[in-house]
Amino acid sequence: MLHKNQNVVNYTFKIEYEGSRYLGWQRLGQENRDKSIQGKMEQVLSRLYHLPAEAIEIIASGRTDAGVHAKEQVANVHLPPGKEPKEIEEYCNHYLPEDIRIFDMQFADPFFHSRFHAKQKEYVYRISFQKPSVFERNFIWTVPTSLDIEKMRLASLVLLGEHDFLGFSSLKKTKKSTVRTLERIDIIERHSELSFHFLGSGFLQNMVRILVGTLIEIGEGKKTKADLLGILQRKKRAEAGFLAPAKGLILHKVFY
Amino acid sequence: MLHKNQNVVNYTFKIEYEGSRYLGWQRLGQENRDKSIQGKMEQVLSRLYHLPAEAIEIIASGRTDAGVHAKEQVANVHLPPGKEPKEIEEYCNHYLPEDIRIFDMQFADPFFHSRFHAKQKEYVYRISFQKPSVFERNFIWTVPTSLDIEKMRLASLVLLGEHDFLGFSSLKKTKKSTVRTLERIDIIERHSELSFHFLGSGFLQNMVRILVGTLIEIGEGKKTKADLLGILQRKKRAEAGFLAPAKGLILHKVFY
Repeated sequence: MLHKNQNVVNYTFKIEYEGSRYLGWQRLGQENRDKSIQGKMEQVLSRLYHLPAEAIEIIASGRTDAGVHAKEQVANVHLPPGKEPKEIEEYCNHYLPEDIRIFDMQFADPFFHSRFHAKQKEYVYRISFQKPSVFERNFIWTVPTSLDIEKMRLASLVLLGEHDFLGFSSLKKTKKSTVRTLERIDIIERHSELSFHFLGSGFLQNMVRILVGTLIEIGEGKKTKADLLGILQRKKRAEAGFLAPAKGLILHKVFY
Repeated sequence: MLHKNQNVVNYTFKIEYEGSRYLGWQRLGQENRDKSIQGKMEQVLSRLYHLPAEAIEIIASGRTDAGVHAKEQVANVHLPPGKEPKEIEEYCNHYLPEDIRIFDMQFADPFFHSRFHAKQKEYVYRISFQKPSVFERNFIWTVPTSLDIEKMRLASLVLLGEHDFLGFSSLKKTKKSTVRTLERIDIIERHSELSFHFLGSGFLQNMVRILVGTLIEIGEGKKTKADLLGILQRKKRAEAGFLAPAKGLILHKVFY
């Protein structure tokens, strides 16, 4: 691996991807390099620099799970000196598959860390009550039931602010803090589509998808605002709603 | 086949499709029913009405070629009486694949014919000078050269109005008229994308794609406005530009 104390340059860039074909952002081992977005891009960079793929580590603002998409994921990577950002960007886009694209590559402060320095993230989850447009079908989950949207909006207010969201995550007990701050939840109705916009300091594993599943159950009348309070207090995953499928989830933006 | 003089009802509806997987709108025979949009939908309707697929014929405003998309294709079909448009629409959308969706199904005048009565069509062709957004990659063709857009716009004026467009089509000599009226050509630049909007009384086979290919050659400096005039006069396909790939073409709207 290239270390910061070697003669390296820190680059930052944005990435968009359709997650459908991938096991997620994170490269998990040698074998599935090809099935993660991180692994795909490390492979391309290693070819450009004639380095073994293990020598390069791309750091992203956070992992996205299998099937989850990103419109503006942010990452950084330490690379040998000598190349202009534009040159690296063009090389990568040429060799990356059609469902991964990088943009806005720039020189970064040597200490910039896309995960540690991320201040807020915005996730959007889209559902449709009818068959979705064929042009957006890979990014929308179809829910063919009617929902009481006003009830969902009112209940969602309970989630705003600083809470321990352990009950809304797939995490087992962990030593790391599971306290996060949710700053906004907007539930926007447009034609036969509903989109959930979440803005927060950070999100635990599967948190957005479990929040969406729970809010949908509130919209169906299966759960209430009081249940949300109970989940925040008792932190029991079993009390929360179902895990909404990855397909409808997109990491929209990361703020620094 | 159901005939108008039988007891049938005429329905009209709109269709959107991603053409990538299909051989085009038109069903060509028994075998490739599954590879055409028309065939796919006739199959679904035949199941709904317990009729042989040959008994049903969907008429569209026009054919689209293999790989070409549609945002708002218009069609009509004669069916046995008794069903509400909404019921048929929901059944079809349920059984049609994800890349075909119908909408706005309505009862039509018994004599309404979606091809004969179409007055104007709007086609859009999109190209990108960089790797396109992963979310729109199936609908944009990448042209990694720079083009003189002003020159293309000026030359395109020559094409407006009523002309014999035979030279801009893949048709062999034909007895049918190849005179069409092009009412508008807008070439719109947005970020690293260029879209060509064509509004006309009708379009010959491959006409939009050959017009785009020829305009691109003008933008590259390989052809001139005078060449366009020559093609209109001499009507020689060989003098026109290359056939731009189907991928970037979309039937946007049909006017009645």
